[in-house]
Amino acid sequence: MWLLCVVDALGANGIKTVMGTPTATPPIWLIKQHPEVAYLGSDGVRKNHGGRRHCCSNAPAYIDSSREIVTAMAREFAHDKNIVGWQIDNEIYSWDGCCCEFCVNKFHRYLEEKYGTIEELNRAWNLNVFSQAYDSFGEIPPAVNAWHNPHIIYEWKVFHQLSNIEFINMQAEILKKYVSAPIGTDMMPFNGLDYEKTVENLDVVMFNHYNDENNLANAIFWFDYLRTLKNTPFWNTETQTSWNGSSSTGQVMKPEGFCRLNSWLPVILGGEANMYWLFRQHHAGHELLHGALLYPSGKPFHIFGEVQQTAFEFEKAAEFISDTRVQSDTALLFTSKNWNLFETQRILNDFSYCERLMNDFHKPLIESGIVPDVIGAKKELSEYRLIFAPYMMTLEDGGLQGRLEKWVRNGGVLVAGPMCDIRNALGAHYRDADTGMLEKLTGCTLDYSIPDSSVYIKSQWTDGTPFTGKMWHELYTSCDGAQELVSVTGGHSAVVGKAVVTKVKLGKGEIILLGSIPSEDDIKKLIGIAAADAGVIPFDISGSVIAVPRKGENYEGLILAEYKNQGGTCILPRAMTDVLTGDALSGKITLTPYEIRILQI
Amino acid sequence: MWLLCVVDALGANGIKTVMGTPTATPPIWLIKQHPEVAYLGSDGVRKNHGGRRHCCSNAPAYIDSSREIVTAMAREFAHDKNIVGWQIDNEIYSWDGCCCEFCVNKFHRYLEEKYGTIEELNRAWNLNVFSQAYDSFGEIPPAVNAWHNPHIIYEWKVFHQLSNIEFINMQAEILKKYVSAPIGTDMMPFNGLDYEKTVENLDVVMFNHYNDENNLANAIFWFDYLRTLKNTPFWNTETQTSWNGSSSTGQVMKPEGFCRLNSWLPVILGGEANMYWLFRQHHAGHELLHGALLYPSGKPFHIFGEVQQTAFEFEKAAEFISDTRVQSDTALLFTSKNWNLFETQRILNDFSYCERLMNDFHKPLIESGIVPDVIGAKKELSEYRLIFAPYMMTLEDGGLQGRLEKWVRNGGVLVAGPMCDIRNALGAHYRDADTGMLEKLTGCTLDYSIPDSSVYIKSQWTDGTPFTGKMWHELYTSCDGAQELVSVTGGHSAVVGKAVVTKVKLGKGEIILLGSIPSEDDIKKLIGIAAADAGVIPFDISGSVIAVPRKGENYEGLILAEYKNQGGTCILPRAMTDVLTGDALSGKITLTPYEIRILQI
Amino acid sequence: MWLLCVVDALGANGIKTVMGTPTATPPIWLIKQHPEVAYLGSDGVRKNHGGRRHCCSNAPAYIDSSREIVTAMAREFAHDKNIVGWQIDNEIYSWDGCCCEFCVNKFHRYLEEKYGTIEELNRAWNLNVFSQAYDSFGEIPPAVNAWHNPHIIYEWKVFHQLSNIEFINMQAEILKKYVSAPIGTDMMPFNGLDYEKTVENLDVVMFNHYNDENNLANAIFWFDYLRTLKNTPFWNTETQTSWNGSSSTGQVMKPEGFCRLNSWLPVILGGEANMYWLFRQHHAGHELLHGALLYPSGKPFHIFGEVQQTAFEFEKAAEFISDTRVQSDTALLFTSKNWNLFETQRILNDFSYCERLMNDFHKPLIESGIVPDVIGAKKELSEYRLIFAPYMMTLEDGGLQGRLEKWVRNGGVLVAGPMCDIRNALGAHYRDADTGMLEKLTGCTLDYSIPDSSVYIKSQWTDGTPFTGKMWHELYTSCDGAQELVSVTGGHSAVVGKAVVTKVKLGKGEIILLGSIPSEDDIKKLIGIAAADAGVIPFDISGSVIAVPRKGENYEGLILAEYKNQGGTCILPRAMTDVLTGDALSGKITLTPYEIRILQI
Repeated sequence: MWLLCVVDALGANGIKTVMGTPTATPPIWLIKQHPEVAYLGSDGVRKNHGGRRHCCSNAPAYIDSSREIVTAMAREFAHDKNIVGWQIDNEIYSWDGCCCEFCVNKFHRYLEEKYGTIEELNRAWNLNVFSQAYDSFGEIPPAVNAWHNPHIIYEWKVFHQLSNIEFINMQAEILKKYVSAPIGTDMMPFNGLDYEKTVENLDVVMFNHYNDENNLANAIFWFDYLRTLKNTPFWNTETQTSWNGSSSTGQVMKPEGFCRLNSWLPVILGGEANMYWLFRQHHAGHELLHGALLYPSGKPFHIFGEVQQTAFEFEKAAEFISDTRVQSDTALLFTSKNWNLFETQRILNDFSYCERLMNDFHKPLIESGIVPDVIGAKKELSEYRLIFAPYMMTLEDGGLQGRLEKWVRNGGVLVAGPMCDIRNALGAHYRDADTGMLEKLTGCTLDYSIPDSSVYIKSQWTDGTPFTGKMWHELYTSCDGAQELVSVTGGHSAVVGKAVVTKVKLGKGEIILLGSIPSEDDIKKLIGIAAADAGVIPFDISGSVIAVPRKGENYEGLILAEYKNQGGTCILPRAMTDVLTGDALSGKITLTPYEIRILQI
Repeated sequence: MWLLCVVDALGANGIKTVMGTPTATPPIWLIKQHPEVAYLGSDGVRKNHGGRRHCCSNAPAYIDSSREIVTAMAREFAHDKNIVGWQIDNEIYSWDGCCCEFCVNKFHRYLEEKYGTIEELNRAWNLNVFSQAYDSFGEIPPAVNAWHNPHIIYEWKVFHQLSNIEFINMQAEILKKYVSAPIGTDMMPFNGLDYEKTVENLDVVMFNHYNDENNLANAIFWFDYLRTLKNTPFWNTETQTSWNGSSSTGQVMKPEGFCRLNSWLPVILGGEANMYWLFRQHHAGHELLHGALLYPSGKPFHIFGEVQQTAFEFEKAAEFISDTRVQSDTALLFTSKNWNLFETQRILNDFSYCERLMNDFHKPLIESGIVPDVIGAKKELSEYRLIFAPYMMTLEDGGLQGRLEKWVRNGGVLVAGPMCDIRNALGAHYRDADTGMLEKLTGCTLDYSIPDSSVYIKSQWTDGTPFTGKMWHELYTSCDGAQELVSVTGGHSAVVGKAVVTKVKLGKGEIILLGSIPSEDDIKKLIGIAAADAGVIPFDISGSVIAVPRKGENYEGLILAEYKNQGGTCILPRAMTDVLTGDALSGKITLTPYEIRILQI
Repeated sequence: MWLLCVVDALGANGIKTVMGTPTATPPIWLIKQHPEVAYLGSDGVRKNHGGRRHCCSNAPAYIDSSREIVTAMAREFAHDKNIVGWQIDNEIYSWDGCCCEFCVNKFHRYLEEKYGTIEELNRAWNLNVFSQAYDSFGEIPPAVNAWHNPHIIYEWKVFHQLSNIEFINMQAEILKKYVSAPIGTDMMPFNGLDYEKTVENLDVVMFNHYNDENNLANAIFWFDYLRTLKNTPFWNTETQTSWNGSSSTGQVMKPEGFCRLNSWLPVILGGEANMYWLFRQHHAGHELLHGALLYPSGKPFHIFGEVQQTAFEFEKAAEFISDTRVQSDTALLFTSKNWNLFETQRILNDFSYCERLMNDFHKPLIESGIVPDVIGAKKELSEYRLIFAPYMMTLEDGGLQGRLEKWVRNGGVLVAGPMCDIRNALGAHYRDADTGMLEKLTGCTLDYSIPDSSVYIKSQWTDGTPFTGKMWHELYTSCDGAQELVSVTGGHSAVVGKAVVTKVKLGKGEIILLGSIPSEDDIKKLIGIAAADAGVIPFDISGSVIAVPRKGENYEGLILAEYKNQGGTCILPRAMTDVLTGDALSGKITLTPYEIRILQI
């Protein structure tokens, strides 16, 4: 009732609504009736009411109640024209994993379904070590309060992620019965969910991004990923106008133009819609210091003008943006399974999967003039010429082993490694070889896997310039016919002469084995080599400019944006017209800090 | 019995006793009989016997037992002439707040009494956000185990502080029935209690201070506060002779003269009495490394001579000290409510209320030659010409809004801000304006509140010299007739031209709105301006010297003390005589490190 | 059955077995039947199955089951010729101490047995402070969840260590009934057990060492200790070949030669046997990144060649090594009681007993050309000329007070201090003097014990060169006839003129009182003085070379080893022959990085 009034009032003032289901915040009366709705920590203490996600997605009472309220809301707003979308729950995740009996029992059923027999689980996890073997699934504890092996920690994590997806899908099914507006769930750039799996049954990818001026490049990584998850543009369900904060803030104001660029960036890279959290700062309760458009008093924030400008510009560029899609012939693999594996067995103590993927590969690609698609395990590969597969600890995901081989044989250039294909689907070592398929496909053997940051191991490119490998070295014996790009020159007598980077032809394509984390200069050199081999042509940029080619049925063009408040340049491949300003441009153009150019051919 | 023997034996040797009630350390047999006496943590585990304050001030069995032993002791020593004071409990505080049923139930009654109806509480705390609303007071959980909003955390904290005050008052009432010696409770410079409220029903302010040579300025802050709480001098119930420690110490020995100065400092600033913890180091058990006067073997510590000297000097100066009181016409506001608010909503992540108050305002005042009274919310204002009100997040405390307005209209100079008057009594934003009274009184509007350490926002004094604001900026539009002192010159086009510091006449007085945390130079410049406007005349000092004017019925004079072991000077306004040495002094005098001058006119 | 097959298969391939009892890892079915087998934390939560040592050594069901399986194994393999040793449990320790009822009840019985009456315990621990006294042993809580005094924390720690020794001895007794191969338990360089007491009823000292290239000097300390525990050589039951790691590693590869030196070092210093953990890396489960000899695929690690070389060399030097024992006339005291005391009362916050003993005394001795025996409290003293007793907080251990006095009177040179003899056996201060025996024996009084790192206290040698004392100063008044070596020249008027280091003759020997932690130069100077007085002749080395004299019935010689990968020299006292190379050597010889010389006279 009251909610309908709100939606009507907004609608009457020209504001459409994305309706959220309220399941992230169960009311206190429900927990009072059903204490088991509250999340149970490994210390035996349930989370108190007062925050968010203090509930258990596997508690029957919670599932039933959620079903009830979602049904009621779906019915109420089924044909409401002011509702333009549905958002299920909010930034769903499961802390360290609820340890209640429902969760633990369901965890047992999950393992039984996956492993079949307890003997198979014991074998797969190698539980003869340390007398760890179980006699039945029912004995397996939640993966807390012990120095657990990585496999049980991994499964406990995955199990809770899947439980949340099940919880989301339960809601999606109900909504689909009644409503026609697109359905999604708003996600965060944390490892809380398998993104690919989460959006399978949903209509639209929803994303909340809160990057600041120091890490907009990370936002680009995420947008490069989000646009590949569905064929429709992703939605920006939340971003801040100025600074993040709860009852206090650790950020400072942003430079002029940041708010506009931050709002434009997802749209440039394949998204649509742009909602600010908060619109008006709360006058009491939570998040009193979070940036917004309006103060509690109703006075505007200092960025109000930037928001207005952005809105006008969106309108101006709407036709071009709506018609066109981002074009890329280069991909960077990024999978939920690897993220979960790396969080349960880091290989190196201070290795952070997502951060390294961004810093060691995505940023150098961007800075080389290539905006890659960041793709999950199931994405169709045929549209790419060049694929990077670093830190793909396992390739046993989405049939990647066979699909990558086929794609290479058909002409693709694959840069594999470091830490690629070195574990099976459960995160265990292979026993017959050191890789799942790479040694077999390339004929090169992986001799040594050694933690070292070029402290001891010295290596160089075949042209004699030094190569700096960081943190980890995989050293190969190249097969006959391989073209060794980087070789070891010193360190330990046993490793001298081994290959760090080596290139092998396979069918119409090739595989470049990359055995270390290259320095910035070295990865850019390798990107150059691989792009040339693949026939990928980077844009000619300098400074912190991204160059995003877009093409549609009616329009074609290029969007340029400067994202570090420092300026840069781009040499246009042909003459274009700025959709916002009408400027006719060609040749080398200069972008001022945070400048955006929507260029149409 | 045994205790009487001890008191008698001490008395027979000329040593008077301040008798402490033993309620900080319940005996094990009481906890055995009544397990609910022990503090219950949020993890469901009770604190073990073996330390201090492991009890719950709300457990009926504990209250009853405490009542019993305090009554017995009060009767036993009611007229004992060797007892010169009573100390209730010891450094009372409540960890994170006991979560036992007595506490939680009483917390509900406390909230009900304060808010009346659950609807009013829901409204005041804005609990429509995140489905947080309660249906009854009985549902409200202790403010632990959740991402709680600041209001519930604040009330949980205040509730436990009030419970302890109730526990103290219970004891005070009993004592008052029997004894005549003054009653107090020894407090520490932590946010464990509301000092003003705690001492309301007590006779004397008691304080334990353990500052070291690096932060004696903080001790000065506390003494400047303590003397304003009661009309009688505060007592120094504990200080160390040399170093602090438990079963180990993290401190080193202090420079020669420190022990004497540390003992003198509270007396100079308005206290009396001086007790050392420990007199003789424990031979076993707790605090084996804490500094003392004597080693367990009975041998003296190396500072023994300094203690003797101090005692002789106290005797010599007794008449002057006893007769005179510290004089100040400048005050700095410091309230328990603000401390609690800042601890439950910091506004800035690394903002520490008490520390910033000391560093940003109290120290610059001292170094400018002004020893201010540090005053709580209820202190009478009429005796002051100049009041600083920084970080007074709310002025809804002790009727400060109305009282400050009246005081300004009568001629006072108020320096208000930063972060002053921006929340209501519950810590919520105002909804109709951005301040409670300041905008209305001054006619200046607070346009923007922005976290920034002059990274982006640049500003300058009207004379053109730059002004450096730290961490936070409140930017005003000055009213007509206001005298703008500091204005924004750069940062974001929306903020250029706004005022950071602006001065407005009100009645016979004036309000200086201070919109940022000034650098050391800038606050000293502002102190100069405000003091001149208020007619406050600072002492002419250099170096780390405090100049403390004192006046009594029979005597008048000035006490000087050097507190950083570095030396300094003071230009005496007239000729004076040193009470300790008999030296006749006038003009500019030099103080050697840690030197003390008790000067009489 | 299956285990016999494994042992037989190994034996058939020439590999002998050290059989381990499996009690560090109880199977899940045992915990299911007897939940009390699992360790109970102070938060009331039991440790989950999945790691190691998640059991309680005091749970009757666990003791019974352990007894059963050890008996069965002992019977099965009683006369198996492939079994060359028995290892009980694995790296046994007790976390923070299990808090189950069995442990707590046994703790009470332990205290009752030690203290007799509760009154005596109250007195000894000084429990009149803070109303801590107990009325019965049954009331005493586990030493957790409170700000406990050091004595109860100490006893709680010792109690759990003793419980583990009891658990080990229970197994040893069973094994002795059946088997003839030597029995031990593998220990780690942590304060988990009293080493001296642990090996009393065992046949052989077993040790797992995992030092890296930066702290091989620490390994030397441990080997210097291990060889003194039994008359037979200790066993190296575990070391790594290359790097440590669990599911990830924080180490990098080691320099060439490290693996060989690390394998040789314990043998040089008095051990025998050398086992690697892991032989072949686990393919799944725990410790997937731990260094090994073989990868899961069976391929060799890059250090494989070093391991082979070491094995050949062991064979070559076997006769010399087996016949000879390390010779030393200098000892450094290192006791479990002191380690436990320092962990429960550090004296200085950042004082770490074992680390300081290594850095402040053992390393300077090694670098001075003296490889000392590191000895426990019960070791026979008569074979030494010179003993260092720093940080021996209490000498009430193994009758050390009387035995040291007698040994000095017979001609020994004792360097006592700092922090020596300043507590009784329970860790309490003495009450009649500041030391237990040193003041009485030397006639020098300990006036002041002061935390200070020569910030304030300045002192110098009698030759006028400055002396730098770290962290702590014990200042003495020398008796008549004492030879003061270092005196205080500044700091505080009360301490000037006191002695920091002073030398007193006693019978045929002497005591050097050392009142501070000397700088590296100062301790080396003092070592020179003490060695000269004692008639100890250091080897003439430079750089990071240890010179280890060995002597046996048939052979005599000197082993040199470079342990920092930097090189060094040694002047040979006479001509010798290298057992490995046959080189004839004399005079000054140079060692290359990690070089080892097994020299025979």
